[in-house]
Amino acid sequence: MDEFDSIARLFRPLATSPEALGLMDDAAVLAARPGYDLVVTADAIVEGIHFLPDDPADLVARKLLRVNLSDLAAKAAEPYGYMLTVAWSPAWDEARRSAFARGLGEDQAAYRLKLFGGDTVSTPGPMSASVTMFGWVESGRMVKRSGARAGDLLLVSGTIGDGYLGLKAARGEFAGPDAALLADRYRLPQPRLALRNALKAYATAAADVSDGLLADALHICRANGLGLEVELGDLPVSVAAANWLAVQGDRTDALMDLATGGDDYEVVCTVHPDCVSDFIGFAHEHGVEMMPVGRVTAHRNISVSHWGEAACIEIDRLGWRHG
Amino acid sequence: MDEFDSIARLFRPLATSPEALGLMDDAAVLAARPGYDLVVTADAIVEGIHFLPDDPADLVARKLLRVNLSDLAAKAAEPYGYMLTVAWSPAWDEARRSAFARGLGEDQAAYRLKLFGGDTVSTPGPMSASVTMFGWVESGRMVKRSGARAGDLLLVSGTIGDGYLGLKAARGEFAGPDAALLADRYRLPQPRLALRNALKAYATAAADVSDGLLADALHICRANGLGLEVELGDLPVSVAAANWLAVQGDRTDALMDLATGGDDYEVVCTVHPDCVSDFIGFAHEHGVEMMPVGRVTAHRNISVSHWGEAACIEIDRLGWRHG
Repeated sequence: MDEFDSIARLFRPLATSPEALGLMDDAAVLAARPGYDLVVTADAIVEGIHFLPDDPADLVARKLLRVNLSDLAAKAAEPYGYMLTVAWSPAWDEARRSAFARGLGEDQAAYRLKLFGGDTVSTPGPMSASVTMFGWVESGRMVKRSGARAGDLLLVSGTIGDGYLGLKAARGEFAGPDAALLADRYRLPQPRLALRNALKAYATAAADVSDGLLADALHICRANGLGLEVELGDLPVSVAAANWLAVQGDRTDALMDLATGGDDYEVVCTVHPDCVSDFIGFAHEHGVEMMPVGRVTAHRNISVSHWGEAACIEIDRLGWRHG
Repeated sequence: MDEFDSIARLFRPLATSPEALGLMDDAAVLAARPGYDLVVTADAIVEGIHFLPDDPADLVARKLLRVNLSDLAAKAAEPYGYMLTVAWSPAWDEARRSAFARGLGEDQAAYRLKLFGGDTVSTPGPMSASVTMFGWVESGRMVKRSGARAGDLLLVSGTIGDGYLGLKAARGEFAGPDAALLADRYRLPQPRLALRNALKAYATAAADVSDGLLADALHICRANGLGLEVELGDLPVSVAAANWLAVQGDRTDALMDLATGGDDYEVVCTVHPDCVSDFIGFAHEHGVEMMPVGRVTAHRNISVSHWGEAACIEIDRLGWRHG
């Protein structure tokens, strides 16, 4: 089956919007939406690095869309569509390629996303794929990483650490009754798109939690030339993570693992203290729990405490080594 | 050097436009341009497939931009900017990565392109990269593959076949005084952006010549449910290709090689016969020579002749096997 047949069979059924021109053209065409900016984000994945060779291909595809959707969520953007490039490896047979396309289709429907176009190539290496995703936001209203001010509270959505434990579970390094649940959460993040209006109304800055809560919070502070105080005791954790924490020797160290582990795809944001309770209430009405976990500071240091006691940070764990 | 350092050093100097937010955010933000559509295209490259491991990295980067620019050129779009995802292999040391970034910078300047953002990852496989590129065109004015009508003439820009011979030269399979020139043309295509206004004014349909003149012309005809007659004797060829043709045993077969070889990155388009002379004149004023090489037909067949004698086509050579 050549490239044209393959695109026709796998991807044309996913590209039914006018923008895609049936994947029969060299390009897609996006009409301007007056009063709106286009928010654009990209993520690439490589087999063996970002997913495991035996991960179900439909879940790989859905996670690829969802990590991009998570970026849109943190920017308060409404999902629109995406361009896809795929490098197929010979190990991906037609069944696996079809499963990948099926996963794309499922999440296109779930998130009202359009496939606009892309490119498919072959590689002798591991399978890889890249998505450039588009979202709409009212002109000038994208929530950036910049915008935080000293004194703003730092809040995070949902629970933190399930991504870290989920990766362990997916690798078979974590046993117990919660392993399957955690592995599922790792494989299929839930982008926090329901936060859009709350972020637009209240957040001074936001990012999604992909590198780890502390690293992503620090990215926000660094983008503003500011520092950060985080209280690990306030970290919202799932029942599964709480069960894991209960059997760890050093609770502070274990909380640091959760706060630096990444792959949570929650939203971390900053809000003026006077607005925090309104923000939490508004987010709750939209089905998302927001928890204050720290404070933006004028000095450029990061300090992490656990019930008020300073916790030791190895700065390398933050994925960020320069000021 | 971690990902953040690497992005800061290699790519931040290339991302100075407001849209890119200094690569410090999760996303880029593109303001609407009233009265314009955004044209979006994507191409991926894999080392060993689309370029050779010893190709200079700056040329690899520039070709990656130019194959996307060629798509914009065929759509009559004005270049705007791009998203880049790169999967670095361990064999790409800092010097090679820097050369890649330098090549991007050179062609960003040459084509007034902005880097908006992207993603960099590591791969144990061959280096690969993917660009999603954006261009502007007045609302509704993108030149599509659809739009051709029976009786339209088929025209092609510049010369055809240098991409085919250039690949041979780059592989060391082609010797002689023109080898270096042809290899350069293969490594560094010249996107036909100067055709923009002529295409908008006269073309009923257009595509760039990446898969081969016959294949890409056929894509246009198939998108319109039409057929095609091509006269190989009218094929515009370079002096280098003419020299090569002169020493081939079967000239018809050799012309077929040039017409099916791909990688020319010229523009093939269709124009109503009454407008052809105006179109050619307009394109010439913009520095591009357009040559009529065939005609769109109402019957869905493709027929290729050489000085009026039917030439045999193996349909597999067209990269298109279904009607």
